[in-house]
Amino acid sequence: MRLRLRNVFLVYFVVSLVGLFCALRELGESRGADFGGFRGVWTPPGWAEPAQRGFGGVQRGLGGILGRIWKVWGEPALSLPPEPERPILTPSFPRRPVQKAELVRLSQTLLHVPALHWVVVEDAAAPSALVGGVLAASGVSFTHLSAETPPDLRGGPGAPSWLFPRGAEQRNRALRWLRDTRGAHEPGVVYFADDDNTYSLRLFEEMRSTRGVSVWPVGLVGGCAWSGRWSRGGVVGFHTGWRPERPFPLDMAGFAVALRLLLAHPRARFDPRAERGFLESSFLGGLVTPGQLEPRADNCTQVLVWHTRTEKPKLRQEEQLQRQGRGSDPDIEV
Amino acid sequence: MRLRLRNVFLVYFVVSLVGLFCALRELGESRGADFGGFRGVWTPPGWAEPAQRGFGGVQRGLGGILGRIWKVWGEPALSLPPEPERPILTPSFPRRPVQKAELVRLSQTLLHVPALHWVVVEDAAAPSALVGGVLAASGVSFTHLSAETPPDLRGGPGAPSWLFPRGAEQRNRALRWLRDTRGAHEPGVVYFADDDNTYSLRLFEEMRSTRGVSVWPVGLVGGCAWSGRWSRGGVVGFHTGWRPERPFPLDMAGFAVALRLLLAHPRARFDPRAERGFLESSFLGGLVTPGQLEPRADNCTQVLVWHTRTEKPKLRQEEQLQRQGRGSDPDIEV
Repeated sequence: MRLRLRNVFLVYFVVSLVGLFCALRELGESRGADFGGFRGVWTPPGWAEPAQRGFGGVQRGLGGILGRIWKVWGEPALSLPPEPERPILTPSFPRRPVQKAELVRLSQTLLHVPALHWVVVEDAAAPSALVGGVLAASGVSFTHLSAETPPDLRGGPGAPSWLFPRGAEQRNRALRWLRDTRGAHEPGVVYFADDDNTYSLRLFEEMRSTRGVSVWPVGLVGGCAWSGRWSRGGVVGFHTGWRPERPFPLDMAGFAVALRLLLAHPRARFDPRAERGFLESSFLGGLVTPGQLEPRADNCTQVLVWHTRTEKPKLRQEEQLQRQGRGSDPDIEV
Repeated sequence: MRLRLRNVFLVYFVVSLVGLFCALRELGESRGADFGGFRGVWTPPGWAEPAQRGFGGVQRGLGGILGRIWKVWGEPALSLPPEPERPILTPSFPRRPVQKAELVRLSQTLLHVPALHWVVVEDAAAPSALVGGVLAASGVSFTHLSAETPPDLRGGPGAPSWLFPRGAEQRNRALRWLRDTRGAHEPGVVYFADDDNTYSLRLFEEMRSTRGVSVWPVGLVGGCAWSGRWSRGGVVGFHTGWRPERPFPLDMAGFAVALRLLLAHPRARFDPRAERGFLESSFLGGLVTPGQLEPRADNCTQVLVWHTRTEKPKLRQEEQLQRQGRGSDPDIEV
């Protein structure tokens, strides 16, 4: 009996050592993929919350195993704040050759962000198969809607593009969807992300702590190198190259709104007849005063989003080839 | 002695059970982040190799532990093909307001791709701090180089931008770096990725099996909806809106080259004096014949890369404000 117990012990010891070795190896490999949480999305180095970063630093090798046990058993004691949902609202305009490319590119940015839900609203009578295909293939959690801009808010064929603000109808549709589906006390931060801008991944981390409306500078907007809130010696103002007298001289990409604040003000919406440059003000005016804006991005000194625009491609050769009956195969989706 | 051994056994059993529980939990959590391999990069769903997908399916719960042991101990027997390195060569042009934004955006795409190494070559006398900062913060494995285009290949101040091909000097510098640092038999696939294009993640999977030079269509290029190789009933040709008589009527984004082929032809390079549209041909002509091109992307029927271009931002307001001494704070990097 004594001998058999020892044998059992030895065999168990060897087997569990192998298991321990495998687990150590596994933990070593997956170290980088921690804390993303949502769908195994990887958090790039350097933009985790400091509290997470310090904790993550412990998790290497054997220290990793111990940290892991600590994580599993000590979780209620540590109580990291839950990752708030980040609904990202994007209007998308069909009948543009770059529509698919822009959505594909933006989806790759959003795929890095934990707890994100992408609400894409097409300016069309119904959601299109093209956009639906991009969203389904993207790997991002999404909702696909549509809301057509009424003809009287579209401007005639010769009217300048800035006569009416673009995307008001679509953003209002997304707001309605949020109000219909989210409970009044759900944590979350809502951001309006147009499909041609460039977003640093740090931006999504900065907006995470939004209590009301948070703001940051936007690069390459309104004819300026950057535009945004500034403060010096207690004085607060806005740097902008376009109508500084606006109540909220902010670009659509320059703020995020707490979901709770949005749900507490069921009438806040974008005015589709707002004067040029006043679309953001028409929405924010129903939520906060300019003095309540919460600066982020190192007190608004870091540009983490750029108002890039994609060139409208010239398809002259295509038209020429089509006249000769040799146009690009239309069965190939672009 | 008998009692003590049993106690030791019991304590060891309990401790190892806790360890097993943690390891199981860990494996369950990190399942999605498998097989990225390189720096814990996450492989989006649906584009792993079929062999990997099948194997990955085994790794759940207890099956995961067994699969893991199998992986560690059975590795020589299974012998999955090693992930070939994908050096991505990108020329970058300074003194453009959108340079940082474009690199940030491209880095987010590349961050999804396993076994990638990004070689960025600036058209400058020395690597800049701005680009260096973007690369260091990107999370992507990178090499930062510079190669200045000589004045006689730059064209005068009034010369049209297409007089000399852009990026030849920088791509040749990257090729030299590859030849200096990579062994003749290292597996790898080289791709030239300009910083303003849009790349589907599937593209990087398609190029993975490149033996010589692989090709696929490029969207929105040369005035066409798409341009690329076609084949019908054994006949092979190229669809292009621009000089179809070129030996290789391909865009820079439309092909990838096996590293071994590149190293076997040490003289293949881009001709900085090539005629407009002939830069790709000057390089590929030193490597293969048009008949040797390997079609990818479902026999060149899928557009997985788009020749998008970023608009040059108009900074009129900025100039106006600067004249009034109220320009954007230059300490804020854009």
